[in-house]
Parts: sequence; structure tokens; C-alpha cells
Amino acid sequence: MMGAVTKPTIGIIGTGAIGGFYGVMLARAGFDVHFLLRSEFSAVAERGLQVDSAPHGMLTLHPVQAYSSAEDMPPCDWLLVSAKTTNNANLAPAILHAAAPNARVLVLQNGLDVEDSLRELLPDSLHVLGGLCFICVHRTGPGLITHQALGAVNVGYHSGPAADEQARKTLVEEGVGLFRAAGIDSTGMPNLHQARWQKLVWNIPYNGLSVLLGAGTIALMADADSRELIKALMAEVVQGARACGHEVPAGYADHLFMMTEKMPDYWPSMYHDFLHKRPLELAAIYARPLAAAKAAGCELPRIEALYRSLSFIDRRNT
Amino acid sequence: MMGAVTKPTIGIIGTGAIGGFYGVMLARAGFDVHFLLRSEFSAVAERGLQVDSAPHGMLTLHPVQAYSSAEDMPPCDWLLVSAKTTNNANLAPAILHAAAPNARVLVLQNGLDVEDSLRELLPDSLHVLGGLCFICVHRTGPGLITHQALGAVNVGYHSGPAADEQARKTLVEEGVGLFRAAGIDSTGMPNLHQARWQKLVWNIPYNGLSVLLGAGTIALMADADSRELIKALMAEVVQGARACGHEVPAGYADHLFMMTEKMPDYWPSMYHDFLHKRPLELAAIYARPLAAAKAAGCELPRIEALYRSLSFIDRRNT
Repeated sequence: MMGAVTKPTIGIIGTGAIGGFYGVMLARAGFDVHFLLRSEFSAVAERGLQVDSAPHGMLTLHPVQAYSSAEDMPPCDWLLVSAKTTNNANLAPAILHAAAPNARVLVLQNGLDVEDSLRELLPDSLHVLGGLCFICVHRTGPGLITHQALGAVNVGYHSGPAADEQARKTLVEEGVGLFRAAGIDSTGMPNLHQARWQKLVWNIPYNGLSVLLGAGTIALMADADSRELIKALMAEVVQGARACGHEVPAGYADHLFMMTEKMPDYWPSMYHDFLHKRPLELAAIYARPLAAAKAAGCELPRIEALYRSLSFIDRRNT
Repeated sequence: MMGAVTKPTIGIIGTGAIGGFYGVMLARAGFDVHFLLRSEFSAVAERGLQVDSAPHGMLTLHPVQAYSSAEDMPPCDWLLVSAKTTNNANLAPAILHAAAPNARVLVLQNGLDVEDSLRELLPDSLHVLGGLCFICVHRTGPGLITHQALGAVNVGYHSGPAADEQARKTLVEEGVGLFRAAGIDSTGMPNLHQARWQKLVWNIPYNGLSVLLGAGTIALMADADSRELIKALMAEVVQGARACGHEVPAGYADHLFMMTEKMPDYWPSMYHDFLHKRPLELAAIYARPLAAAKAAGCELPRIEALYRSLSFIDRRNT
């Protein structure tokens, strides 16, 4: 466990909206944060990072410890992986370069089993954890991030050298402690896989429909037909989770539905990916849950229809 | 039955792509055809109708017996109803004005039970028949129609004063005879309701997906995911038909699928309606089949998801 005096060094692998927001919050809380960037490196090295946050006001970080190559990064105790899942196979080398021995790799991505493909490519000495971000945030330009609402990160242990349940719990608490120290809500999750299914109850309807119907949450929640479709898609996710052995708490889908009604107009990350002609995260958010449910003998026809429609759109868009 | 000497007078109620094409073909075959128009009346009265037909070449009809009001039309023995189903409630008065006593009203519209709403508003003395058009045709401007391929009209009896099966059969043959006299393939259908379900096996996937995915048949048939989605939607239509007591012949969906692969790039009428911000024919093509299947205890989840998505799009478009 890290001492109270020496704060851990943190590396951000992929400084988009998520990585940029949490990195800036952690840096402002006094952590030593190092940001890996690709296309936006020059802009951020020159002008810094700026988070326009509805709850927190305008947050700037300048200068930024920015890197265009992971080889130049110092050994990091925690690595926050916030690049797109569509690029996971290429992330492992960067993680290896930036990881201190026994580093904790926290995967802040959406979708099911997103840790698995990374895990295979990393040495056993590294801990892999998963983090679920409940946040409305998007990138508006190089180094510019708009934070509309929410912000919690829930943390669970995926795999690695932690010897027993107590060791895993200690690592999760350490991760939770980082975020809390930066003023961010965070809770440990005893079952990461189940928690990823639960998060899909939101992501599967809203991410896909934002692209398919060209609509943000306010428009989707204002129309009787899209509301029914969202409810039906949520019910299928719950059904899929259950078929895979993960009971979703009663009323959880209703809770997310009502929470979304209270949110400002939010256009999920998939919509921004579509708009900027980036590949959509369809494998992580749709294909893998569909395959897992199917392997458990459970068909999810509405999700499958949505997935096939999005695949068609994605292929024509990129 | 009509004599061989006096050809029946034909009225076209709604001169769009379908009404214009068949009206021109019938007029060129020597029938006395009268066209009811709304917004395009002046253009057609002045410049006539022009059908650019891939199989038949350039067909022009000029002058056209065009009317802006059904009150001015002569009594017609046959009325071909080819306006949009979204306007059916307003069509009955026009039909009453233009109908000879004992007229045959042939409804050339897509969707399930499209004759029912008209039937309720018409006197018992009128025959109502349904016609299914297998044709790739669209309107390109006022009085301008492009005919890409196919053309058959299959005719079935819906309701009216025909006393028995033989009388109904005679009326159907009379309708079939009109089209054949104009060089158009036509077959009588013993069960109109079943035939309408069968036609939906094509319309439900292709009409909706053309709007949802912004794609014509060539693009939809070229992508592995849209192909699977089309097949799954077709299978649900067959399932719905069966639940309602209408067995669709084995291999019928495959036949339509393969036929579509051989067609030129076709953008269904629903796409053109969407493009021109006209209301989509969702009640006839989606809501009624879904309700009929549901009443028979059969859920069609992919069709329902497509219907709800299209309803959202339609509401924002018009």
C-alpha cells in the first residue's frame, strides 16, 4: 500500500474527455499526473488542458506533463486507461513503457470484458482493475473538455498478483482513495463483471440511439416511442445479465431511466465518435454482451437489431 | 361484367408515382383515364405526364384528363386509389364523387388492412378490391415519374355487393384484365388479407431501413449486418402472418431476398416520403401488423424496435 506521504505517480493513457477530466482533477489535488497524448500533444503541451465544468467552474492545468510517447513517461504507480476500446490491442506497449513494477492499471472504458484483451498482453506482475465512470463529459477541441454533470468512478479488481480477497479489496480501496482525494465520488465494487453488465443498462440504449436517431438524451426522453424503445432495450440488458448469472437489482433500470430525465441534454461518447468519423465502440458495448448472452442461451433481439444497424452505419462512416 | 366494346372509365385517385404510372399505361392502351391531382394539377394539366421507364422507354401522356377536384370527374367504373395511406380518411369523399354506381374501388396501397378504413366510409353498393404493386417506381418532379423495374399488380376482392365466390372471382378477373390489356402482369389473389401479409415481408424491412439507415437496396444488400437484419425482420413478418392464421409459403422470404439482390438500386417510397418531409406510412406498414400479431399473442421485437425508431424520426421530420 502507498504511504500517506509519497503520493502515487499517475499516468493517463489516452487524454480524451474522460482521461483529461480525471487527470486534471487529480493533478489539481496534488498528484503527480503524466498525460499521454497523440494528435493533441502539441496543443496541450503549448496551451494546457481546460475543463469547463458545470459543477466545478473553469479548471485549467498549465503547464501539463504531456508526452507524445509512452517511452518518455516516468514509471507510474497507477495508469488510467481512457483511450477508445477500439484501440485496445495497441495500448499494451504504451502501458508496459509507463508502468512501474506492480503498477495498477485501471481501465476506465465502457463495455463488457474490456479488461480481458489488455490482460492477455500484460505481464502477471501488473494489477488490472476496471473503473466505471458515471459522468457527462465530452471533448470540444484540442485540450478542451466540457463537463456537464455527475462524475463518480466505481472501481473493481479484475486480475493480477493480488493473493487473496483482502489484497484485492486493499487495492480497490487504494483506487477509490485516489478519486476521493480529488473530490470525486468513488465506491469499490465487489464484482466488476456484474457492475459492467449494470452499466450497460444505460450505455446500450443511449449510446446506440444517439447515433441511430441523431438525438441527445433530452429528445430521446421527450418522445413516447423512444422512451418505450429505451425501456425495452434496458429490459433486454437486464435479461442478458441475468442469463449470464448476474442479477441486476430490482428497479435499477427504472432508476437509470429517471436519472436520465434529470440530466442536462447529453450526447454520449458514441455520438461524438460518429460525428468525428471515429470507429464506434461496438464490440465492447454490443457484440460482447450479445455473444455472452447467446452463449448462455439468451437472445436479445432488439439489442441485436440495434447492433446490426449501428454496424452498418459505422462501416459507412469511417 | 363490362362488355368487350365499351371499355370501362378509369379514375386515378392520387396521381403520384404509382397512380401516374398505371394511369399512363392504361391510357396508352386506349382506356378512358381521368387523373385526380392536388399540388401538381397545374403542371400536369399544362405539360402532361411523363414516365421514364427502363423497360418501356419514355412514355408521355399529353394532354392529360386532369382534375383538381373529384366533383368535376365523370362517373368512373374503376377507381384506382394510389394516394398515401396517411390520407385515407380524406379520400372517401373524392371516391364518392368520382364513382359510378357499382364502381370497383381498387386500393393500390401498401400495408395491412388499408381497405378497412375506406370501406367504413363508402356505401355498400361499391366494390372494394385491393391491389398489390410489385414495382420500382418513384416520382422525380411534378408529373415526372421514373420506372426502374418490375410492374405486376395482383388483385384481390375485399368487400362489397358481390353475392358469392363466383361473383367475386369475376370482378377480380375484370381487374386483372384491365392491367393485362395495358401490358402489365397481373394475377388474381384468392386471399387478399394473406397476400397483404406476404407483401409486408418485403416492405417491413426495406421501407423502414431505407429511412433508418439512409440506404437504398444495393447498399443494404451489400453489407453483412444489414443482410442479417433484413433476414431477421423478414422472419418476424412470416412469424406474425402465421400467428394470424396466414401461412406464408416456404422459401417466400428467401425468394424476395434474392429478387432484391437482382434489382437496380431502389429507394422505397418511404424514403422518398422522408426526404420530402411527408408523413411516413407507419400505421399501415408497421402499427397494424404489430397490433394484429400482438392480438394473436405474438411479439415481433425487431419490427417493434424499427417501428418505434421510425416513429421518432417521423415526428421530428414532419
